[in-house]
Order: sequence, then structure tokens, then C-alpha cells
Amino acid sequence: MIDLMLIGIGTGNPEHVTLQAARLLNDADLILIPDKGEDKSDLARVRRQICDTVLTGGTRVVSFDLPTRDEATPDYHARVVDWHDAIAAIWVREIRENLGPQGKVAFLVWGDPSLYDSTLRIADRVAKILPLRVRVVPGITSLQALTAAHRIPINDLGAPFTVTTGRQLRDAGWPDGVDTLAVMLDGQCSFQSIPPKGVHIWWSGYAGMVQEINLSGPLAETAPQIMAARAEARAQHGWIMDIYLMRRQTPRGDTDE
Amino acid sequence: MIDLMLIGIGTGNPEHVTLQAARLLNDADLILIPDKGEDKSDLARVRRQICDTVLTGGTRVVSFDLPTRDEATPDYHARVVDWHDAIAAIWVREIRENLGPQGKVAFLVWGDPSLYDSTLRIADRVAKILPLRVRVVPGITSLQALTAAHRIPINDLGAPFTVTTGRQLRDAGWPDGVDTLAVMLDGQCSFQSIPPKGVHIWWSGYAGMVQEINLSGPLAETAPQIMAARAEARAQHGWIMDIYLMRRQTPRGDTDE
Repeated sequence: MIDLMLIGIGTGNPEHVTLQAARLLNDADLILIPDKGEDKSDLARVRRQICDTVLTGGTRVVSFDLPTRDEATPDYHARVVDWHDAIAAIWVREIRENLGPQGKVAFLVWGDPSLYDSTLRIADRVAKILPLRVRVVPGITSLQALTAAHRIPINDLGAPFTVTTGRQLRDAGWPDGVDTLAVMLDGQCSFQSIPPKGVHIWWSGYAGMVQEINLSGPLAETAPQIMAARAEARAQHGWIMDIYLMRRQTPRGDTDE
Repeated sequence: MIDLMLIGIGTGNPEHVTLQAARLLNDADLILIPDKGEDKSDLARVRRQICDTVLTGGTRVVSFDLPTRDEATPDYHARVVDWHDAIAAIWVREIRENLGPQGKVAFLVWGDPSLYDSTLRIADRVAKILPLRVRVVPGITSLQALTAAHRIPINDLGAPFTVTTGRQLRDAGWPDGVDTLAVMLDGQCSFQSIPPKGVHIWWSGYAGMVQEINLSGPLAETAPQIMAARAEARAQHGWIMDIYLMRRQTPRGDTDE
């Protein structure tokens, strides 16, 4: 039996690591870290830095190359499913080569393994090939890093909120029934696709990292500032990860106190 | 100037504390811990346990009594707003008495300060009376603890999800436009209010704590099991905190892979 630990490590601040994550990383026989294929060297560096900071004993750390998604596959879902299959095959190979038939292997997962992350889906595939016991260790998400940076609650008092993707926002618009919307996985500044009147936005690039950038204000005025800051930061660092929360004014004035 | 730190501590597992939270708790001059008024002695004990575990130096830890909500106020919003006013007055008094005009004071916040939590709203009130610099330190939320316990992603692949309260679910039903719904602050098993056909539920009581209970399955069959387990656990411990995620089957079979 192999113990597979998917360990949430937060959003790039090595201090986001929990005491539990630190203990279990030390308890692992092997830590597998994706290196290339993901063209974000800062992220690989943060994973290395976390290992350097928290590991006290003999845990082996092995890097492996991630495949890239095949952009020739036109359907988004099919493309992602194929990609997960390819990654699962690599996990199986790396576990067989570096761990053997039993032991504890850990993966460091950006943010939290539950939130717009593929590792649980990949682990399901690996479990069909190797005898696996999966354990998930929760981590700080970029939603938490965003709201902490801006010192705001996610939700209005007692009110619901929706978390969605840039793609969904462009395709389906602002969802019905909520006045608060968090948007992740948005490479295209999809806030441009909604009518800005009465909408406030809180945006963070690199939320939680040392290079964090925070902008907020009425959407109409703030959108161009965000787009400019985003383009500049991306040019400077070679990559960007960002997230934002938008809130619509409601007829009932007191829900936002 | 007073530095007010709202520090997310996770959901009752002392190991949910991040390295950042541990460092900043040690950096504080004063930690204020609500003690009575909140009839959940396990929670107060966890806060004490975290302080005992992570504090290495001379940080003072002071308890204070929380007021209770005035159930005679019929309107929910008014009741909560009055309650926040009363707590803010107590914070001001405790800070003046125990810290003086400057220094660093920390509050340990269950879960994360952004998510269905009142501390940011109370801090806004305190900032009108005392010169305050507010810092938010993100923590593991019960959403993360829930999905980690069940080893599930929150979202379907690339799909949105909504987080709501038991009250909202009862009043407004299942929101339009999402197939995944997380429910918090539900003291009344409000999943009973929705048609169960095609809905799967993942439920956790005391998510993240040693007494954690996890149940999952089709809503129709699992709802009575949850209600029985919940009533029994509540009778045993004197209190319960629970959270659940529900997912509806979608016409497109592959979105949940």
C-alpha cells in the first residue's frame, strides 16, 4: 500500500504552510515536485524553498517534468482530461522508480487541493493502477490570500457568494441570485465582459507572495488600472496569477453594513 | 497607533495553524480570547491549546466575556448589528485596559477572518474609536477541512460553485446556475428543504477536530443518517458545528469526470 499525501501549501508565501503540512512533509519518504512544463520558475522556487525551510530529516525530494496541454485538442474538457491522464502516467512512473511498492509520497499542492486544482482527479487515475491510500491536507487558498490582503469579508452579512472562473464569467455572465462573485483562473481580465455600474472590485496579483499587488475600487475606474498593472507585472515576472472579488450594490443598503 | 491582528487559526485542529500565524502570535504583545457567552467550551479550549503550543515568549493572554445576541430583537440583521456593536465596545475596553495606547493585539479567529465571520465588521467599529492598523492573517476554513476529510474537489472541472447559509437555503432554495452548493451556519439541517433527487451530499461535523464525523451519499438516503448522527453528537458534546457540500447531477455526464 502507498500513502499518497496531497498537501496544500498556500499561495506562495512559505509561511502559509500549516504545522500539519510541515509535520507530514517530514513524515514522507518521498516528495515529488513538478519542475518544468510549468513555465513559472517562481512557483518551483517557492516549492523548493518550503522544502528547505520545513524539512529536518531524510525526506527525498525528486523533481519531474510536467507535460503541457495539447492545444491541438479543440474541446476544453477533452484537452484537460487528456492532460490529467498524461500526468497520472508520470506520477505512476515516478512513484514506481523512486518509492517502490510501499511508503509515503507527498505532493505539494498550490493553495488547497480542493479548489480548481487537478491533483485529486489525477490521484483517482493513479489509484486505478497502484494500491493507494489518499490523504488530503488543507491549505490556505488564494481566496483567503485575496481577502486578507484587502482586509474584507468574502460574504455580505449572512449572504451567499459564488466562486467561478474567467471562462464561465465570459460565457454565462454574472450568475443570478448572488451579489458577490469571486473569479479565479482568469487569464483574460474577464471583468471587462460585465456591465460595471454599481460593481466594486478587489483584485490581487500574486496574492500572498512577496510581489503581491492589490488594487480595488469601482469597477469602471479600476478595470483599466488592473489591466495595466497586470500587463506590466506579467512582462516583468514572465507570469502572473491573479484573483478578484466583485460585489454588486444591493437595493437593501444595510447588507454590506 | 494600535496594530490589530485578526489571525485565522483553522477549524479546531491546532495543527491547522500556519507558520505565519504562529510567528505573529508570538510577535503580539497581547492576545484577547473570548471565553464565556459562547457556550462551546471545546472551542475556548482549542484556542488555549494553540496559545500553549505556539507561544514561546512573553505574549500576554487575556480572556474576556462575550455578550450574547438579544433574541428579543426580531429582525435578524438588526440583532446581529446590535451584537457587533456590543462586542466592539468590549474590544475597546479590553484593549485600553490591557494594552494601552499602542502595541500589537491579536485575536484568534476560527477558520478564516473572511468567511462568515464578524471580526472584520467589529474591527471596523473599533477603528472609529481607537487609532487602528488592521492586519488579516488567512487561516484554513471549514470548507477546506470538509473537502479534505472527504478527499473531494469543491468544484466540478472548470465549473462554478456557491457558498451559502442554512437560512438562505431554506428561504431561497437551490440557487440558479450552479450544480455545487456548500452550506454553512446551518443549525436546522436545511438540506431537508430541497428535492433530494439526483443530489449527493458530503457532510462533516466538527470538520478538522478530533471528534470529526463524516457522512456522504445520495441525499435521500443520507439525510436521515446525518440528522441522527448530528443529534447524537450534539447531545454528547453539548454543541456542534457542521458544514456540507451538495452536488447535483448535470445533464453533461463528464463534468464530474
